[in-house]
Amino acid sequence: MKSKESVFLPLVGLYQATCCSETKYLGRDDLLLMILDKGSIISGCLTKSSAPSAPIMWCRKNFKSTLKRGEPIVILVNAGNANAFTGKEGQVACQRKADTLSNLFNCNHSNIFFASTGVIGEKLQVQKIINKLPILKKSLVNNNFSSAAASILTTDTKTKICSTQFMINNHVVTISGFAKGSGMIFPNMATMLAFVFTDYSIDGKTLTALTKKAVDNSFNKISVDGDTSTSDTVFVSSTRRVKIKKNKKDSNSFNDMFYEKLLLVMVNLAKSIVLDGEGAKKFIEIEVKKAKDKKSAREIAFSIANSLLVKTAIAGEDPNWGRIVMAIGKTEKIFNMEKLKIFIQNQLLTKNGSVVKNINEGKLKKELEKKYVKIIVDLDSGKYGFTAWTSDLTEQYIKINADYRS
Amino acid sequence: MKSKESVFLPLVGLYQATCCSETKYLGRDDLLLMILDKGSIISGCLTKSSAPSAPIMWCRKNFKSTLKRGEPIVILVNAGNANAFTGKEGQVACQRKADTLSNLFNCNHSNIFFASTGVIGEKLQVQKIINKLPILKKSLVNNNFSSAAASILTTDTKTKICSTQFMINNHVVTISGFAKGSGMIFPNMATMLAFVFTDYSIDGKTLTALTKKAVDNSFNKISVDGDTSTSDTVFVSSTRRVKIKKNKKDSNSFNDMFYEKLLLVMVNLAKSIVLDGEGAKKFIEIEVKKAKDKKSAREIAFSIANSLLVKTAIAGEDPNWGRIVMAIGKTEKIFNMEKLKIFIQNQLLTKNGSVVKNINEGKLKKELEKKYVKIIVDLDSGKYGFTAWTSDLTEQYIKINADYRS
Repeated sequence: MKSKESVFLPLVGLYQATCCSETKYLGRDDLLLMILDKGSIISGCLTKSSAPSAPIMWCRKNFKSTLKRGEPIVILVNAGNANAFTGKEGQVACQRKADTLSNLFNCNHSNIFFASTGVIGEKLQVQKIINKLPILKKSLVNNNFSSAAASILTTDTKTKICSTQFMINNHVVTISGFAKGSGMIFPNMATMLAFVFTDYSIDGKTLTALTKKAVDNSFNKISVDGDTSTSDTVFVSSTRRVKIKKNKKDSNSFNDMFYEKLLLVMVNLAKSIVLDGEGAKKFIEIEVKKAKDKKSAREIAFSIANSLLVKTAIAGEDPNWGRIVMAIGKTEKIFNMEKLKIFIQNQLLTKNGSVVKNINEGKLKKELEKKYVKIIVDLDSGKYGFTAWTSDLTEQYIKINADYRS
Repeated sequence: MKSKESVFLPLVGLYQATCCSETKYLGRDDLLLMILDKGSIISGCLTKSSAPSAPIMWCRKNFKSTLKRGEPIVILVNAGNANAFTGKEGQVACQRKADTLSNLFNCNHSNIFFASTGVIGEKLQVQKIINKLPILKKSLVNNNFSSAAASILTTDTKTKICSTQFMINNHVVTISGFAKGSGMIFPNMATMLAFVFTDYSIDGKTLTALTKKAVDNSFNKISVDGDTSTSDTVFVSSTRRVKIKKNKKDSNSFNDMFYEKLLLVMVNLAKSIVLDGEGAKKFIEIEVKKAKDKKSAREIAFSIANSLLVKTAIAGEDPNWGRIVMAIGKTEKIFNMEKLKIFIQNQLLTKNGSVVKNINEGKLKKELEKKYVKIIVDLDSGKYGFTAWTSDLTEQYIKINADYRS
């Protein structure tokens, strides 16, 4: 079946519309409305920041019982303003948007979901957004994915989209998603938004569990700059149009098949975010192997992924594995230096607590000129592993972030 | 009394010599030998990295009983090569240097201390260093501080020195120290070296306790890039020449007076390191106030200090306090957003969970053009505080670190 990275595969029962909100960007769409027909369900993962945005606080209450009411699900997203740390006014803004949407689409407040991305702390010009809602309603079309994916971008340089189709018991199931995010990227989960849609018929509880698991294995493995935002949001929605006859045993194996594809889409989107990291020129995969427990594998992988010195070395195409040793050491996890093996681009660089003899530095430097860099850290002290994805750190990152608000 | 930041005040019983080791840098001294007369004592704080360098492993065993033997204390420092992650060969290198020094100065191995700074993982050309030791011995002079401070630099752009003299019970006490470090700076304690000398007569146990306390309140408050090295070293030595008559009660108050000045010297050196941070243009002080416990105050202060987004905003002279909120939120410490107050350059920017009205952005941007930036975070939820010092993050940092090894 199809698995397309640059073309959206459509879904029945999903409608989208975009426009320019006139709150921040001029000359481009930055407001996105999405409607899922009644009978749909939605689940999500939201930032763990203890300074969450107003939309995050709004959504936290709403992941339940959207199915029961026989009403559409409404998702409204704006780019340019995060509506974060805007105090009571931020919450009032969500309430006012919801009042209008509830009237327009004849649905309960708890069927309405918001996501906002952009500058933190500036008040949302909510009236301007509300003024656009009737226009957006009128321009809703089935599967306007390309415009949707473009409308949510901020410092991103390109849209991030992924679609796949596959068979479950002779039925065609589709998953289509898009994401944004290029700085402030770190589990859980940074200034990233992702919206994933399927038509696979699944119950809300299972969808919630699979969403959380897929997020852990995709978006929670990436880091561009080690920062976490107030606004990170992943929604996974299903129109539930593709109903597949199943007994209980089938159900588990069908759900496994669905999960595998859901993860594929999310990993693709997560990697696209890293590749579009602010100023990033390289994609770096850091695989920590044979750790004594999962926690230390993860901590070591992210210590490397977030080290400015490692990331700048790779930007400079310098196989400075000493900085990797430093980043491992920084975690204060006890490990045996004598057993540690470090590979860059599959070349073994260290063993027995020091550099291996006869490294072909010239060849290695050549290998590092590639866009994709793989670091393997083998601790040889257990059976647990973790893989983190990050980008290199370039002068361009500083340029983008020193000027972001202006 | 005198407190000089750019002139060294001498100490009787301390000798120094420098030369070019020919192991890395040509045309500049990078090898430093320091001798303290017998009767001296030494204490120190070493990196907590779990991948410590060979010199760190060597020194860890030696902080004891240097007084007893009536032998000199020998400190040998080299810049350009950290002798870290060099396996057994690194340890053998220390052993060989110690054998030679032990013969030259007629002292026990345990009176010999090493510090190395530079690239991790490259083998130390120990024979070249050993060849220089007799020459260094011959050129030892009393108080050659300026050359000493220059010889230990790597990517530093300037020497970092501080001296002070003060009276205790009508006796003149001197403290003189110097340090290096400009990247990989983070407690505990990054690629930084600091050597502090005094003539105050103090027992080894008390000196050790005061050294640890002073390091916690100086070098352990700084961060340039959030990275921790394999080699961080602070030595505090006393020639014990200034003997002050005292009873037990006096002793405590005299030691308090000494501590206050020791801290002053260390804070001065710590701040100098931040100001000379790789590519740094600004010094940023982050004071977290009224936290519910010390640990969360520290964690929040460093979350801000280490945030690339905060550091780049300040490099861009942009009062983007939203990124400060993000960095606080990232710690996952529960706090009340409604109570949070954020000040930049003493201007209150947030209260009641949102931005204050009528901020004079023009004035604030003007204030941010200054070299010294002060951020205050008032959590209003307890009585604990912590202050962290960091630098801004500029394109120059990336340039330096992408090219470091070349």
